[in-house]
Amino acid sequence: MAGVLKRINKTNDIKNIQPSEYGKLAEEIRGFLIDHVSQTGGHLASNLGVVELTMALHLAMDFPKDKLVWDVGHQCYVHKLLTGRAEGFDNLRQYGGMSGFPKRAESNTDLFDTGHSSTSISEACGLVRARELSGGRERIAAVIGDGALTGGLAFEGLNNAGQLKSNLLIVLNDNNMSISENVGGLAHYLGKIRTSNRYEEIKGGVSNTLEKIPFIGEGLVRQIRKSKESIKQLMIPGMFFEQMNITYIGPIDGHDVEKMYEAFRAAFRKNGAVLVHVITKKGKGYDCAEHDPGRFHGVDAFDVETGKRIKEPGGRTYTDVFSEAVVELAAKDRSLAAITAAMPGGTGLALFQEKYPRRFFDVGIAEEHAVSFAAGLAAGGVHPVFAVYSTFLQRAYDQILHDVCINRFPVVFAVDRAGIAGNDGETHQGIYDLSFLSHIPNLTVMAPKNAQELKKMLEFAFTIGGPAVIRYPRGKAYEGLEEYDAPLQTGCAEWLKEQGRIVLLAMGNMVQTAWEASEVLAGEGIDAAVVNARFAAPIDTEMIRRAAAYDMIVTLEENVLRGGFGEMVAAALLDNTGGGYRGGLLRIGLPDKFMEQGSQVQLRQCYGLDTESVVRKIKERWHRSDEDNRV
Amino acid sequence: MAGVLKRINKTNDIKNIQPSEYGKLAEEIRGFLIDHVSQTGGHLASNLGVVELTMALHLAMDFPKDKLVWDVGHQCYVHKLLTGRAEGFDNLRQYGGMSGFPKRAESNTDLFDTGHSSTSISEACGLVRARELSGGRERIAAVIGDGALTGGLAFEGLNNAGQLKSNLLIVLNDNNMSISENVGGLAHYLGKIRTSNRYEEIKGGVSNTLEKIPFIGEGLVRQIRKSKESIKQLMIPGMFFEQMNITYIGPIDGHDVEKMYEAFRAAFRKNGAVLVHVITKKGKGYDCAEHDPGRFHGVDAFDVETGKRIKEPGGRTYTDVFSEAVVELAAKDRSLAAITAAMPGGTGLALFQEKYPRRFFDVGIAEEHAVSFAAGLAAGGVHPVFAVYSTFLQRAYDQILHDVCINRFPVVFAVDRAGIAGNDGETHQGIYDLSFLSHIPNLTVMAPKNAQELKKMLEFAFTIGGPAVIRYPRGKAYEGLEEYDAPLQTGCAEWLKEQGRIVLLAMGNMVQTAWEASEVLAGEGIDAAVVNARFAAPIDTEMIRRAAAYDMIVTLEENVLRGGFGEMVAAALLDNTGGGYRGGLLRIGLPDKFMEQGSQVQLRQCYGLDTESVVRKIKERWHRSDEDNRV
Repeated sequence: MAGVLKRINKTNDIKNIQPSEYGKLAEEIRGFLIDHVSQTGGHLASNLGVVELTMALHLAMDFPKDKLVWDVGHQCYVHKLLTGRAEGFDNLRQYGGMSGFPKRAESNTDLFDTGHSSTSISEACGLVRARELSGGRERIAAVIGDGALTGGLAFEGLNNAGQLKSNLLIVLNDNNMSISENVGGLAHYLGKIRTSNRYEEIKGGVSNTLEKIPFIGEGLVRQIRKSKESIKQLMIPGMFFEQMNITYIGPIDGHDVEKMYEAFRAAFRKNGAVLVHVITKKGKGYDCAEHDPGRFHGVDAFDVETGKRIKEPGGRTYTDVFSEAVVELAAKDRSLAAITAAMPGGTGLALFQEKYPRRFFDVGIAEEHAVSFAAGLAAGGVHPVFAVYSTFLQRAYDQILHDVCINRFPVVFAVDRAGIAGNDGETHQGIYDLSFLSHIPNLTVMAPKNAQELKKMLEFAFTIGGPAVIRYPRGKAYEGLEEYDAPLQTGCAEWLKEQGRIVLLAMGNMVQTAWEASEVLAGEGIDAAVVNARFAAPIDTEMIRRAAAYDMIVTLEENVLRGGFGEMVAAALLDNTGGGYRGGLLRIGLPDKFMEQGSQVQLRQCYGLDTESVVRKIKERWHRSDEDNRV
Repeated sequence: MAGVLKRINKTNDIKNIQPSEYGKLAEEIRGFLIDHVSQTGGHLASNLGVVELTMALHLAMDFPKDKLVWDVGHQCYVHKLLTGRAEGFDNLRQYGGMSGFPKRAESNTDLFDTGHSSTSISEACGLVRARELSGGRERIAAVIGDGALTGGLAFEGLNNAGQLKSNLLIVLNDNNMSISENVGGLAHYLGKIRTSNRYEEIKGGVSNTLEKIPFIGEGLVRQIRKSKESIKQLMIPGMFFEQMNITYIGPIDGHDVEKMYEAFRAAFRKNGAVLVHVITKKGKGYDCAEHDPGRFHGVDAFDVETGKRIKEPGGRTYTDVFSEAVVELAAKDRSLAAITAAMPGGTGLALFQEKYPRRFFDVGIAEEHAVSFAAGLAAGGVHPVFAVYSTFLQRAYDQILHDVCINRFPVVFAVDRAGIAGNDGETHQGIYDLSFLSHIPNLTVMAPKNAQELKKMLEFAFTIGGPAVIRYPRGKAYEGLEEYDAPLQTGCAEWLKEQGRIVLLAMGNMVQTAWEASEVLAGEGIDAAVVNARFAAPIDTEMIRRAAAYDMIVTLEENVLRGGFGEMVAAALLDNTGGGYRGGLLRIGLPDKFMEQGSQVQLRQCYGLDTESVVRKIKERWHRSDEDNRV
């Protein structure tokens, strides 16, 4: 590490750095981040944007007594550096390595393990109320981006923060981006502030600004001062927040450490909630990221000179397949519309946006709205598809149930990153969707075995006349088994192989694994039938009836076992067969725990979902059940 | 029906009423509502508040071409009356009768089946975008209360409405109440508008009002007009909305039909989203309801003269038991705090609020915030309990998983109205919680068999050191089986009776039913063991191992079968026993469909969860499995 940065080895070391060295420190931090993230991959642009902001917070606060809450948390790298975790960057986001998000287990300066958006103000409100009850004096701050502020939870947090009587600092890190450009009335409003004359109410006075308003002269200002209400109504950039009873300070240059330090210290002195609005540049200090902050939001390893990926991804991903398929369908069906919650790139809708801008809706980081809005579109005769990551769809469980499914609206949910999502860790795994979706009445839940089937399922989903989910994994789309192509029919599985005494019932991407396992087993003289289950809801009870004739059933799913596909099979087996079930049932899926970060390959091995593990488990159980054939 | 009202027999009939008769019509509608709701029970105060508002909307719109979206929907009674559904009030909210909420099946003027809060703006945005795509010209309006506006989803809706280029009318029905009094920065803001000089920008001019602002004279107004931006920043009550790019009109007297009519017609002429702020009085026109609108929000049958319930409820409810227990615990544990999302009365926290105001938090209609806030409290060393109805907890699925359970914070969820909730129908049944909660890692999920056990579970929940759910039903608390009182231990069931060849594994309130069924069966010579399962997560695998020794296992739960307790038992049976399970398994629970309205007693009978049905099912299956003992 370079000169100034190497003097920072633990929390609060930054306080020994001279103000004259802040610029150099910021530069060294940026160098460090670019150097490391270009090797490991990770979140880059947002971290480059908050270098000075994080420095100012660390200067203005005393850790671990004081409490700092990051929203989402992908922008915590500088915080990790300043709390003595430089070494962790060598294995950032790797299996067993340092997380790319705040982690309580890593440091007493990380308050919450987070990864989802818009939670920080609410969590910080909780810390403030706890401080009030305990009589503590610690400072509490939340840092939230303007993107995360479009999430309804953040608004609920602001609404409650407006009631606080003791101090809470809310830092609005405004870079005019979530992952892609921000949308909505609030973004419009913040945009106006950014382009207005800067107004910094740090020292409590408003008269300077009032005097600058063209047609309000000095005499008037004196009069206006008499009426606090009127002052509040005048041209203060933060009225939106002030109206919610939150003191507003800003906008402030988010790359000026000393100005921010001053603002934060001033803010900490006030009773109640104070929002300090800082303007930052996403990707700051690295040309490639400044020019394309969306692409450098989260990156794989890249070449620092060119900004290009070191290893080009191999082949089409499921996202690519969806992307092409939805555009094709939209060409045929003019009533088809697509919705994203601030992720046109990640979900594959960028192409749709380009081709059909009128039918494309980016609603901001607002999954609940996305779903209720889809219900409205459907009520108006449009056929919407909401493309979303599995983990973020968790946000909209009630809207799916209440707004869409009770009304049986034909809304299609294209659920990407279902199953093991990889290096983002616990907060991003898409391993719950079969459990939280397939018990909702009226909802069809499917998973394709390969690229071709994803395309067909998407087409099929729009013909159902009711709500439908298609879940598919992150990464390269499987192109095998294309010769198996039975027409889709609601609640009907597809039998790929029938021979053997064992039958493998597999959901989605686990069909490939089941197939490969059956090939290995066949090589060892064990025949196993393979079924592509296709539907988690409604489940194919005829499939289960047929499967019950085998000596052993194996279910395979990339989802937690609790509430998942295997449980449905178990229950249906015992329902259908009246007097019990005498075969064996082996349920392969994920255990009842949060899953740590790692590559998909590593995690599948670790949790026994790779072909080799599946073969081993089947053989073990097969031999055991031969021996151990009791009730 | 009285004179004017009887001339309204179908949609749009109100347009034949003379303006001079509006007052009389409003009075007759109020009489009709009081008369009927006092007999059937239902939502009264909110409907009395929107009589004129609904009339004005029906005058300003043409149904069914135009589209009106009610938020929550419990305030749709007047709308039902004006669309020819007067007869329906005879069996309002009864099994097979008219719904107390909008229902698409009832009328083409009901656009969405709803019951949860804060969805209307998002749904209406969908309708607007659909209209833009189809080139239609229908008017679209959403009516939302100031309470529902505290929900984050409503804010997400506003944020997106701010982008609309074509018209959307949002009517803010401001009565300063959700069910109880409103809280938060927004309520504070609306309060200030209400008490400010009324400003009605109906005709597009602002000069009148500006001239009234004390220190801004006529000459200044001329200057100000030049700068639209500056005008917007001046003292216009709706700046909060204007800043989100939503035109604001108001506040307007919500009991003046003609003024509202004018405002709505003016609003419909504007491009983009327009919010008309109307001030109404909840309970208007009925003294008892005006004085205690909270109690008259939803009522049982009552005496019109006195306002008193006709039939006093018999005995303590589970809510009462929780209410007392949490206050007792708070006396012992000074770090215990309680949270409600705008329902201190319904959840039984009113007593806590009275006794421990500093530790009581009403966060408004904001379940997501409630949970993230609880996570923050827990991170700060407080022991929070969030008391909430099962159906509303659906809103916070992601916050439970992401904010609380990943962090393993000791947050207690007191989940009331779990199971069949009754007359509110599809949108309010609490029949999904076992399915959406018990697959979340780190979360303990329990259900008590009786009042005494609820109390003990609550105490126990605070000792676990991690997140815990206790679910309990609406209505009278069961006081039987108190002699069974085994100490609580995580993941351990309580065996009440062991004898017999059948074993009944029951969850929560179904223990009573199982017990009663076993008594009936015993009378017929069939012994059945009874187990109080207590834990849905972690499930007691030892219980299942022991149960497997019986000839037949029956699981009982008031939850959908999919993802519920019975499925866990089925899966565990087949896991544990290696070579299959040769006994019978009968899973008693709810089918994969949305459950209509009716009394709890009726619905339990209808869905086979009453003692008689349970006995019948067990006997049928028992005799069948004797005959039919194949794979």
